Amino acid sequence: MTTPTESLSDQPDAPDTKSGGISRRGLLGLAGAGIAGLGVGIAGDRTVAALAASGTGAVSTSYPFFGEHQSGIVTPAQDRLHFAAFDMSGSATRDDLIELLKDWTVAAAAMTAGKDIGDFGAVSGPYDAPPEDTGEALGLPASGLTITFGFGPTLFQTTEGADRFGLAARRPAELVNLPHFPGDRLNPATSDGDLCIQACADDPQVAVHAIRNLSRIAFGRASLRWSQLGFGRTSSTSTSQTTPRNLFGFKDGTANIKAEEPTAVNDQVWVQSGDGAGWLAGGSYLVARRIRMGIEPWDRTILSEQEAVIGRNKGEGAPLSGGTEFTEPDFALSGRENIPLIAENAHVRLAHPTQNAGIRMLRRGYNFVDGNDELGRLNAGLFFISFQRSPHQFTEVQLNLARHDALNEYITHVGSALFAVPPGATRGSYVGATLFA
Amino acid sequence: MTTPTESLSDQPDAPDTKSGGISRRGLLGLAGAGIAGLGVGIAGDRTVAALAASGTGAVSTSYPFFGEHQSGIVTPAQDRLHFAAFDMSGSATRDDLIELLKDWTVAAAAMTAGKDIGDFGAVSGPYDAPPEDTGEALGLPASGLTITFGFGPTLFQTTEGADRFGLAARRPAELVNLPHFPGDRLNPATSDGDLCIQACADDPQVAVHAIRNLSRIAFGRASLRWSQLGFGRTSSTSTSQTTPRNLFGFKDGTANIKAEEPTAVNDQVWVQSGDGAGWLAGGSYLVARRIRMGIEPWDRTILSEQEAVIGRNKGEGAPLSGGTEFTEPDFALSGRENIPLIAENAHVRLAHPTQNAGIRMLRRGYNFVDGNDELGRLNAGLFFISFQRSPHQFTEVQLNLARHDALNEYITHVGSALFAVPPGATRGSYVGATLFA
Repeated sequence: MTTPTESLSDQPDAPDTKSGGISRRGLLGLAGAGIAGLGVGIAGDRTVAALAASGTGAVSTSYPFFGEHQSGIVTPAQDRLHFAAFDMSGSATRDDLIELLKDWTVAAAAMTAGKDIGDFGAVSGPYDAPPEDTGEALGLPASGLTITFGFGPTLFQTTEGADRFGLAARRPAELVNLPHFPGDRLNPATSDGDLCIQACADDPQVAVHAIRNLSRIAFGRASLRWSQLGFGRTSSTSTSQTTPRNLFGFKDGTANIKAEEPTAVNDQVWVQSGDGAGWLAGGSYLVARRIRMGIEPWDRTILSEQEAVIGRNKGEGAPLSGGTEFTEPDFALSGRENIPLIAENAHVRLAHPTQNAGIRMLRRGYNFVDGNDELGRLNAGLFFISFQRSPHQFTEVQLNLARHDALNEYITHVGSALFAVPPGATRGSYVGATLFA
Repeated sequence: MTTPTESLSDQPDAPDTKSGGISRRGLLGLAGAGIAGLGVGIAGDRTVAALAASGTGAVSTSYPFFGEHQSGIVTPAQDRLHFAAFDMSGSATRDDLIELLKDWTVAAAAMTAGKDIGDFGAVSGPYDAPPEDTGEALGLPASGLTITFGFGPTLFQTTEGADRFGLAARRPAELVNLPHFPGDRLNPATSDGDLCIQACADDPQVAVHAIRNLSRIAFGRASLRWSQLGFGRTSSTSTSQTTPRNLFGFKDGTANIKAEEPTAVNDQVWVQSGDGAGWLAGGSYLVARRIRMGIEPWDRTILSEQEAVIGRNKGEGAPLSGGTEFTEPDFALSGRENIPLIAENAHVRLAHPTQNAGIRMLRRGYNFVDGNDELGRLNAGLFFISFQRSPHQFTEVQLNLARHDALNEYITHVGSALFAVPPGATRGSYVGATLFA
């Protein structure tokens, strides 16, 4: 099924040569011509070239693609996002799906290491074939790129009696579409999908390059259903990071799960072997929600009301019950006339683990601005991403928020998706292999 | 018309206190409540706070807002863009326009210096009023922010016999809509506009913050017509910068005018005092073109054809006539069978000054990806921006390209705008003041 090549064998994290090359079909997707199998060259190592060119000796971060868990979850949240959902083509078979995942694995391992994809990369190939790599990341280092893959409920579907990819029996019981939440105004065209790829990097051109090249490899097998760029991370996933601000001007994600909390990560993020679907152990569930923010109404809201809605002050991010940013909110504390300092419908209260049976999530969202609407209002908001051991965690908290959150006056959920994120790929294998074992 | 305050007087580049505050109307736009005139505080200096918080002593670039020329033209091109076009409201008067430009000046001077806007900024104001600054840039340094203002042809229009802003007689003869070029498929909704603001920064959140707050200040006087985010600069404007790549994977802007070429900048970028409209001396003309790229067809084109279309090789960016990136192309050089090494219809030939009577432009464009279309194709391309002494420079070269460029098979111009960019504001005055003198 795959074409063995030596192309990535100099790279510690590359799959071994038995399964290391992009498939003939994948190369056809790239090339549109029969050059598969010709490859013996090694695609350029962009990182080395970039550092040599810069002359600064600056070190660019790179994260391994292979490992127990996929990268891009507890990895310190990078600054930029390109997220894409794909649908398998109507004619694609189970073998096509496996082959696609193998091809994506090879390409993702190369790109996260700062390399071009393919045997020849962007510019070293035969002149009578399209370049394997599209080239816009030439000269750029790995830039902390992570590429995280997920499987949507529809991948496991039985359609008109036919088990699409022979996976119906393998569907985790919890991998079903999220319920409709009060206030949801979802656009089906920017919701759901058979597969997803989350590409995060510190350089948006590197994230865009990743999604583009993975889309290209999928040609004929899967196609882009919807995609979203994000420009500013709205959560920290490591104690080494400062808390960023969302487009309402508030610090977001103060109480987020951090990589430095291994117990919380295990309890709340990674699917455990006893959780149900064994193939998903070491993986997670990814929830994506496109949340349109009413920027203009918010900007006309008085400061005290903004703070009451959130339950934190705007400058420091401290809970209204007192202290500093990382002080635990005291929801019992009342002020004059016995009114709670943090309102009953404040966002921070309704989302807090103490109000949700201890439920936490690892949030990894991004701010977005996609131009403006016809009324001159910014089409802006939060592309919410969370990782959790069970979709139930998101659903419980979101039901609480959707019913009561004072913030609902200013936000609308317009897109939604749920994906099962398989564990990390092992060297010589491919992402999602446990699903097909 | 303006409310004198001391709010920015500690800042070397701030206007003096005679005209230094945001107008009552501008503050109303920000606040939606009558807090104007209360201001005595000094809005927070984000830069100082950010550097103190980071603890790294890292220095963030900041560029002065005031000066002979506006910043954001020969300024070394920053990495990120938020561009916005505005239309004046139907009821707005000449005085409203002047007041708006004064308010924008005060706010732009503050933001480019890494400060919040207004007397109180994002979090120090009265709790019973909306914050003056929207706050999402709190904690972020100036990030090289530049804010560049321009005037569209419609600002000078006479509508139904009425001279909209008393400017009809001041319109530069050359400030008329660009001609229709062969192949143009322009969307009127993302073309033209009375005013434009180009915000460039090394942090997209800072650029977005600038456009958002300037839009807010304009409330009731002007509203957003269209806007565009760009994530990767596609030209260098300084010899200190490496040449970036566009989404076709090629280096772009190798032959661009650089700030270090003062003669070329004077001859080709700045309007000179004898050029016509005296108020525009020291200014420039800004052309914006939204160019949709056919990513998928390009990616299926063989490498030799890609290089032939551009006229340069893809790796190094050297002209096909030989040499390295900065070698001058030799258009006379032929290869086998007397065929020119750089084709007659190659992009680099048709755009080159030697083929256009010595015409050059200062290009300052950005890559964009705005999701994807229903067919799963990336909605991506180049948001082209160029600055030139006369629109004629763009028109001549673009006519040449639109008629003959081999690249036309892969690109479509879908948006277009022309703006007159006034000279830099002097301290104590406002941007565009010469137009009303």
